[in-house]
Amino acid sequence: MIKRQYDSFMACDAEYGEARLVLFGAPFDSTTSNRPGARFGPGAMRRESFGLETFSPYQGKDMAGLKLFDCGDLELPYGDAATAVDIIEQTASRIISDKKIPVMLGGEHLVTLGAVRAAAKAYPDLRLIHFDAHADLRDDYMGVKYSHACVIRRCHEELLDGRIFQFGIRSGDKEEICWGNSHVKTRFFDFEGLGDVVEEIIRDDCHVYITIDLDILDPGVFPGTGTPEAGGVSFKELLGAMLNVCRAKVVGCDLTELAPGIDTTGVSTATACKVLRELFLALRV
Amino acid sequence: MIKRQYDSFMACDAEYGEARLVLFGAPFDSTTSNRPGARFGPGAMRRESFGLETFSPYQGKDMAGLKLFDCGDLELPYGDAATAVDIIEQTASRIISDKKIPVMLGGEHLVTLGAVRAAAKAYPDLRLIHFDAHADLRDDYMGVKYSHACVIRRCHEELLDGRIFQFGIRSGDKEEICWGNSHVKTRFFDFEGLGDVVEEIIRDDCHVYITIDLDILDPGVFPGTGTPEAGGVSFKELLGAMLNVCRAKVVGCDLTELAPGIDTTGVSTATACKVLRELFLALRV
Amino acid sequence: MIKRQYDSFMACDAEYGEARLVLFGAPFDSTTSNRPGARFGPGAMRRESFGLETFSPYQGKDMAGLKLFDCGDLELPYGDAATAVDIIEQTASRIISDKKIPVMLGGEHLVTLGAVRAAAKAYPDLRLIHFDAHADLRDDYMGVKYSHACVIRRCHEELLDGRIFQFGIRSGDKEEICWGNSHVKTRFFDFEGLGDVVEEIIRDDCHVYITIDLDILDPGVFPGTGTPEAGGVSFKELLGAMLNVCRAKVVGCDLTELAPGIDTTGVSTATACKVLRELFLALRV
Amino acid sequence: MIKRQYDSFMACDAEYGEARLVLFGAPFDSTTSNRPGARFGPGAMRRESFGLETFSPYQGKDMAGLKLFDCGDLELPYGDAATAVDIIEQTASRIISDKKIPVMLGGEHLVTLGAVRAAAKAYPDLRLIHFDAHADLRDDYMGVKYSHACVIRRCHEELLDGRIFQFGIRSGDKEEICWGNSHVKTRFFDFEGLGDVVEEIIRDDCHVYITIDLDILDPGVFPGTGTPEAGGVSFKELLGAMLNVCRAKVVGCDLTELAPGIDTTGVSTATACKVLRELFLALRV
Amino acid sequence: MIKRQYDSFMACDAEYGEARLVLFGAPFDSTTSNRPGARFGPGAMRRESFGLETFSPYQGKDMAGLKLFDCGDLELPYGDAATAVDIIEQTASRIISDKKIPVMLGGEHLVTLGAVRAAAKAYPDLRLIHFDAHADLRDDYMGVKYSHACVIRRCHEELLDGRIFQFGIRSGDKEEICWGNSHVKTRFFDFEGLGDVVEEIIRDDCHVYITIDLDILDPGVFPGTGTPEAGGVSFKELLGAMLNVCRAKVVGCDLTELAPGIDTTGVSTATACKVLRELFLALRV
Amino acid sequence: MIKRQYDSFMACDAEYGEARLVLFGAPFDSTTSNRPGARFGPGAMRRESFGLETFSPYQGKDMAGLKLFDCGDLELPYGDAATAVDIIEQTASRIISDKKIPVMLGGEHLVTLGAVRAAAKAYPDLRLIHFDAHADLRDDYMGVKYSHACVIRRCHEELLDGRIFQFGIRSGDKEEICWGNSHVKTRFFDFEGLGDVVEEIIRDDCHVYITIDLDILDPGVFPGTGTPEAGGVSFKELLGAMLNVCRAKVVGCDLTELAPGIDTTGVSTATACKVLRELFLALRV
Repeated sequence: MIKRQYDSFMACDAEYGEARLVLFGAPFDSTTSNRPGARFGPGAMRRESFGLETFSPYQGKDMAGLKLFDCGDLELPYGDAATAVDIIEQTASRIISDKKIPVMLGGEHLVTLGAVRAAAKAYPDLRLIHFDAHADLRDDYMGVKYSHACVIRRCHEELLDGRIFQFGIRSGDKEEICWGNSHVKTRFFDFEGLGDVVEEIIRDDCHVYITIDLDILDPGVFPGTGTPEAGGVSFKELLGAMLNVCRAKVVGCDLTELAPGIDTTGVSTATACKVLRELFLALRV
Repeated sequence: MIKRQYDSFMACDAEYGEARLVLFGAPFDSTTSNRPGARFGPGAMRRESFGLETFSPYQGKDMAGLKLFDCGDLELPYGDAATAVDIIEQTASRIISDKKIPVMLGGEHLVTLGAVRAAAKAYPDLRLIHFDAHADLRDDYMGVKYSHACVIRRCHEELLDGRIFQFGIRSGDKEEICWGNSHVKTRFFDFEGLGDVVEEIIRDDCHVYITIDLDILDPGVFPGTGTPEAGGVSFKELLGAMLNVCRAKVVGCDLTELAPGIDTTGVSTATACKVLRELFLALRV
Repeated sequence: MIKRQYDSFMACDAEYGEARLVLFGAPFDSTTSNRPGARFGPGAMRRESFGLETFSPYQGKDMAGLKLFDCGDLELPYGDAATAVDIIEQTASRIISDKKIPVMLGGEHLVTLGAVRAAAKAYPDLRLIHFDAHADLRDDYMGVKYSHACVIRRCHEELLDGRIFQFGIRSGDKEEICWGNSHVKTRFFDFEGLGDVVEEIIRDDCHVYITIDLDILDPGVFPGTGTPEAGGVSFKELLGAMLNVCRAKVVGCDLTELAPGIDTTGVSTATACKVLRELFLALRV
Repeated sequence: MIKRQYDSFMACDAEYGEARLVLFGAPFDSTTSNRPGARFGPGAMRRESFGLETFSPYQGKDMAGLKLFDCGDLELPYGDAATAVDIIEQTASRIISDKKIPVMLGGEHLVTLGAVRAAAKAYPDLRLIHFDAHADLRDDYMGVKYSHACVIRRCHEELLDGRIFQFGIRSGDKEEICWGNSHVKTRFFDFEGLGDVVEEIIRDDCHVYITIDLDILDPGVFPGTGTPEAGGVSFKELLGAMLNVCRAKVVGCDLTELAPGIDTTGVSTATACKVLRELFLALRV
Repeated sequence: MIKRQYDSFMACDAEYGEARLVLFGAPFDSTTSNRPGARFGPGAMRRESFGLETFSPYQGKDMAGLKLFDCGDLELPYGDAATAVDIIEQTASRIISDKKIPVMLGGEHLVTLGAVRAAAKAYPDLRLIHFDAHADLRDDYMGVKYSHACVIRRCHEELLDGRIFQFGIRSGDKEEICWGNSHVKTRFFDFEGLGDVVEEIIRDDCHVYITIDLDILDPGVFPGTGTPEAGGVSFKELLGAMLNVCRAKVVGCDLTELAPGIDTTGVSTATACKVLRELFLALRV
Repeated sequence: MIKRQYDSFMACDAEYGEARLVLFGAPFDSTTSNRPGARFGPGAMRRESFGLETFSPYQGKDMAGLKLFDCGDLELPYGDAATAVDIIEQTASRIISDKKIPVMLGGEHLVTLGAVRAAAKAYPDLRLIHFDAHADLRDDYMGVKYSHACVIRRCHEELLDGRIFQFGIRSGDKEEICWGNSHVKTRFFDFEGLGDVVEEIIRDDCHVYITIDLDILDPGVFPGTGTPEAGGVSFKELLGAMLNVCRAKVVGCDLTELAPGIDTTGVSTATACKVLRELFLALRV
C-alpha cells in the first residue's frame, strides 16, 4: 500500500522496455561563460510539469497513452567536460541501439555533442537542425575546445559540410559567422526557409537530430537562461517551427540552456515544459 | 489638520453613496493548485496605483471626476472556500441592490463564483464573458468542487447552457474541453469572434458580467501569476477586447489571479493597475 | 541498464518492508494566514539534500546503513483541510501499525493533527513535545477550526490536559496564551526545562511525538517561513533540544512550515535538511 | 454597511483627538548613498503588521486599548531634502503641540532631523539617544549638508554638546569619529553604559527623543537596509535597550532605514513591526 | 607584467585623445518618484557587456577598431539635483568642445538636461529626439522643477517650440499632454512619422541629440525600470527607430532609466547593452 | 582632464611597484557541485566596497596610505580547472617573487591550490591555516581530482603531514574526516586552539598562508555561498580569529566562495568586503 513515488516528467510512466521515447537529464554547465545554473534545468522541469495539462489544444492530442520513460538525470562530473560528453554519448547510444528516441534535457548546450555523436554513428545520413540565438561555431573558447560556445563546431567535425542547418541565430563573433558561411547553413533572426529544408530532408529520406537552445526564444518570454539575447522568437513561432521539423524522421532531440534559478517567476521553466510536451506529442507516431 | 490617509486605488475617493462603481478586494487563494499568493493582489494594486497616471491616452479620458468607491479587502477565512464565496456573494449583492457596479479584485479565480451568483440573481438574463488562459470547467479538482479549476463550471450551474463565452483559452484537460463543447462557447488562443458575441448581447439587450483571469496575458508581460501559460495575448489585445465588451451593459466585473510576489519586478502589478484604470474609464457613463 | 532514478531524501533507499523510519511529505498549506508556500517544502528538501553529507560531525554517525524509506508526497486536496488531515491520519496509522516511525514533512503546521491523531490512537500514553514560535492554541481562526493557528488546540482534544509541552513560544494572542496556562505546559523563548520534561517522560516510560515548527528558529537563520518571528533559537540550540528529546521513545515526528520559495538563497531549505539528517541519526537505534 | 477600510498599523484605530501616540510615515530616501528603497518602509510595515499579534510575551502587554492614531504617510518631494525636512518638522510640531508623542517611520535617517528640530524647540532640555550602525556625524557628504550621513551632525546643531548619546556604532570615517569624540558620547558596537545614561537623564528629569536606525541590528536578522554592516546587535539586545530608554520621558521617537524591497523574505519588515509594537507598548503610560 | 585592468564597456579601449565617441555614466536617481535604482545602471552595463559579442548581425559591423573611450561614472551628489545637472553639463561641454560625441548612461532621465544644455549651447540649431513611455513635460513635480518628470519641459526652455520630437509616449497627466500639444511634437505609442522627422532634419542640416528612456520598451522585454508601462515597443522596433535617427548628424545621445536591481534576471541590462552596441555602431562614421 | 576611472577595491590605488599587498580576483567556479556563481565574487566585492568606510573601529586603523594594488580579475578558462590553477600559480609566484603578498579573491575554493603551490615553492616551511565549513579533503569528487571538494587534499600533496590546520569544519564525508585524522589537524565547529597553533608557528618562525572559505560564517550572516551549512561562526568570531593569525608572518591569503547572486540583499558581499578590509589592515606593517 505504501509505495515509492516517482518524480518524473508528467505522464512519463511507461517501463523502459515498452517506451519509444526516452527522456534523460544532462545536468552539466561547467563551461558556461556567463551566468551558470543550467545544471538545475531538468529537475526544475520535472517539478514544474505538475502544473501543466497533458492535453495540447495546439495539436489536439493528449499525452495519456504515450509510451514515455524518464530515466532521471545522469551523474556528470563537475568540471570535466570530456567525461561528461562521453557519458552522454554512451547513454544516447544505448537508447538508440534499443530502437528508441533519446530526448535530452540540458544543461548547457555542450551536452548536445554527446547525443549528436551517438546519433551520427547510428545514422550516417544524419542532419542536424539547430535552433539557437548563438551560432556556437567557435573553434575554441579561451583555449577550451569542449565548450558550449563551440558545440556546433564540434558537431560539424562529426557531420561535415552541408548537413547542419541553423535558425534564429542573432549573436556570434565575426570569425565564427564567417567560418559558418562556408560550412553550415545559417538563417539569422527567424525560421525563414525552414520549410524548404525540412522538405528536402524528407525527400532525401534522411534522419534528423534537432537541438533547441531555448535562448532562441525572446528573453521577454524566456529570461531564465545564462546569456539572454534581445530580439528572439515567440513561443508560437518556436512551436510552429518545431512541429514543422517533426514531419521528418527525428531520431534524437534536446532542449538546453534553461537555467531555472535565474527566472524566479517560474515562467521560463513552465515554458520549457510546454515546449517539451508539444515536442513529445509531435514525435508521437 | 492631522487626518487619516486612505490607501485606496487611485482616484477612488468618492463616498459610497455617490459612487457608481464600487471596488473591493477578495484576497483568497486557498484552492490555488500551483503557486499561491493571489491573496496579496488587491493590496499590491492599491499601492502600485500611485505610480500610474489618472489619464488614459488610449481612451483620451481621465479618472478625475469618476465616482469610485474602494471599500478595501473583504475578510475571507483561509481554507474555507464555501464561506469565502458566500461572503463575496453577499457583498456583491448589496452593491448591486444599491444600483452600483461591483468591481472585484482577486484573489484566485474561485472568487468570481460569489460575484456571478449575485449578478445572476439580480439579472436573470446575465451573460458571462470569460477571458482566461485556462478553461476552468472541471467538475471537481482532486475531489474539491469549490476550486479555482472549477469556477466556470460552477458558474454554469447558475447560468446554464449558451450564456458563457470564453476567449483566449489555451489550457485544459481533455474532459473539460470536451464538456465545454456542449455547454459553453470557447474561443481558443485569442479574441476572434468577440465582436459578434458583444453585438448579439447588445442586440438582445442582456446584462453582462466580465471576468478577466489576468493569466490570459502572455507570461512575458504578466509573469506574476500562479500558473503561467506560454503563448498568451498582448496588453493591447486585452485592452481592445475589454473596450469591446464595455459597449454592452456591464453589471459586474473582476480581475483575478495576480500573485504580485511572484513577479518581484512589479511589472505584473503595474499592468494589472493599468487594465483596471482602462476598465474603470470604459465603464464610465 | 537504463533504470529509473528515485528522487528521495538522501540515503532513503531502503524498501518499505525493511525500513524502521518512513518519511512522507504533506504538501498542504491552504489555511496559511500569512505568506503561503509551505506546500513546496518536502520537494525542496529532497532536492537540496543532494548537497548535504550523510555523515554528522555533531553525532559522529553516518546515514549509510540506516533503513529509511521515503514514500514521497501525499496527494492532498487544495482547500479541503478536513480531508487532508484524514489522509494524513490514514497514512500515519498504516505506518505505525506496520511498527515503523512516521517522519512527516509539512506543509503548514495543521498537518501535524493527522499524524498526532494516528499516534494518539496507537499509543494512549502519548506525550506531545512542541517546538514553535507560535502557540497555535486558538479555538478557531476567522471561524475555521482546522487551521494552522489551532493545530495544538485540536491536538489537545486528542491528548487532554498535561500531556502537551511547548518550548520556544514567542507569539500568541492573549486569549490563547491564557487558555494554555490551564491546559498545556508552555516555555517561552527557549528550551529551559526541557531536560526535566524528557526525564519525566522517560521515567514514566511514555511514548512521545515531537512536532517541530521550523519557525522556532531565528528568522536570521531560517527566513523561509510564512510568519517569521524575530528573536528565535539558533540551529545549535534546536539541535541540542532535539537530541535531548530523542532519548525518549519517539514514535512519530514532523518538521513543518518550511516555505522554500520565500528564501531564494536556499539556506532555509538546507538548514531544514540538516535538522532532518540529525533527527534521523538521533532516532537510529 | 459598506464602509471604507483603513490600512493602518495594527490596532492604530483611535481618533486623532483621543490618541496619545501618533504614527506617521516619512517616505523619503533621496540622499541615500548606497541602495535606496527606504521610502517604501512605512507602507510595508503597515501591511506586514497584519501577521503580528497585538500581545507581547516580552512585556506581557496587549495593544488592545492603546490609543494610537496612524495618520499615514506624508507627501514629501523627491529630490528636495530641505523641503522634506521642513514638512516633517511641521507635522511633528503640530503633534507635540497637541500634547501627543510623534512616532515616525522612515525613510532614510535624514528624516529624523525634522522631528528632532520640532522636539528640541518644544523641550529645551531634550536629550537624543541614537541607536545606529553608522555615526552619521559628517559635516557634509559630497558637498550636501542635508544627507543621511550628516543627520546627527545636523541634530547637534540643534542640541549642542553633551546631549547626544550614540550606541552600537560600528562604522564611520576617521574624521567624523574624531569630531564625535569632542561633541557627542559614542559607544561602539553595543549598548554598554546605556543604563547609566538613562539613569542620569531620569535623575535630571530631561525629555528624550530616541532615534533608531534599524541597521544597528545585525544584517543576519535585518538585511533589508541600504548599507548593511556586519557585526550588529541581536533583536533581543535592541529590545532590551529600547525598554531601558523608555523608562525615561520619551517625547518622540523614530525607526528608520528599513528598505523592504531589499529583503524579499519579509523578515526585515516583520522584525521592524515587532520593534514598533514593543516600542508602542513600552511607551504606554 | 602585472597590469591594472579596466572595467569599461566592451571594446572601449581607446585613449581619450583619439576617441570620437566618449561614454560616461551619470549615476543619479534622487528624484525618481517610483522605484529608485537607476544609479546602478552604468556600472551594471559595463559588467554585463562582457557577455555580448562585439559583432552585430543587424548592421553587419564589428566594434573592433571603433575609437571609443569610457571615462567611467561621474561623482554626483545624492539629493542635490541642480549640482548633478551642472556637473553633467560641464562634462558634456568639455567632450563636445573636444570635437567628440558624448554618450551618456543614466541614471534617471533628469540627467539628460545637463547634456542637452551642453549640446544646445554648442549647436544652436539642435533638435531633440525623445523616445520614452512618459511625456516628462510637467512644469514641476510636487513642487520640484529639477525632476525626472519635468526633464523634457526643462529641455524645452533651452530649445523652445518645434524642436522637440517625442515618440512612443503612452503615459502622462492631462495637463502636460495638453501643454505638449502646443509646444512639442508628440507621437503616441509608436514611431510612426519618425522617418519624416529625420528626413526634415537632414534636409535642414540640423544637429540632433537623441535621448532614449529605455522604458519605451515593453516591460515584458525591459522590466528593469522604475515605472514600467504596459504596451511598449519591441527591441526590433527600437533598433529600427534608432538606426533611422542615426542617419542624421547626431552630436550627443543618452540611454536612461535602466534600474538593474529591479530585474534580477539580467535581461534588462543585457538588452540595454545591446542597444548601446547598436548605437555605437550606428554612430560610426 | 577627462580621465579613465578605475574600478578597484576601495583605496587600492597604489602603483604595482610600490605596493606591498597585491589583490587579484580568480573568478572560477567550474567544479562547484551545488549552486555555482562564485565567479562573480571579486567583481561584486569591488563594486560593493564603495559603501564601506576605509576606517576600522575594530582595529582603529584606516586604509588611507596603505600601499595596495588591485590588478583586477584573471582570465580563467571555464571548464578547464588544471589550466586555471596554473594561471593562478603563475600570478601568485610573480607577486611573491616581487616581494609582495598575494591576496586572492575567489571564485570557488579550488583556486587556493594555485596560490598555495606558489607560496609553498617560495617558502619551504609554509604552514596552511584553513578556515572553512567543509573539510575539502577528498581524494577525488566524482572522479575529478581538481575539485573544490579536494582542494586541501591537493594542498596536502604540496605541504605534507602536520602543516595544515583546519578550523570551523562542520561538514565532511566519513572517509575524508578519517583521512584527515592522520594527516592534518582539524578543529570542528569553532576556533578553539587557534591561539596555540599561531603561537607555535611564531615560535618556529614559519611562514603562513591563510585561506578563508567564507562559508565558515553562519549562513544567517553569509547566505551568499553555494553550499551553506547551518551552525557557523559569527562575523566577530571570524574577525578575532583572522587578527590572531595575522600576528604570524602571513605571506599569502585568500577569501573564497562568495557567490553574490545567491544573496540578492547584498549582505554577503558587504560582509566579505568588511572581512577583506580588516584583513588588509591586519596585514599592514
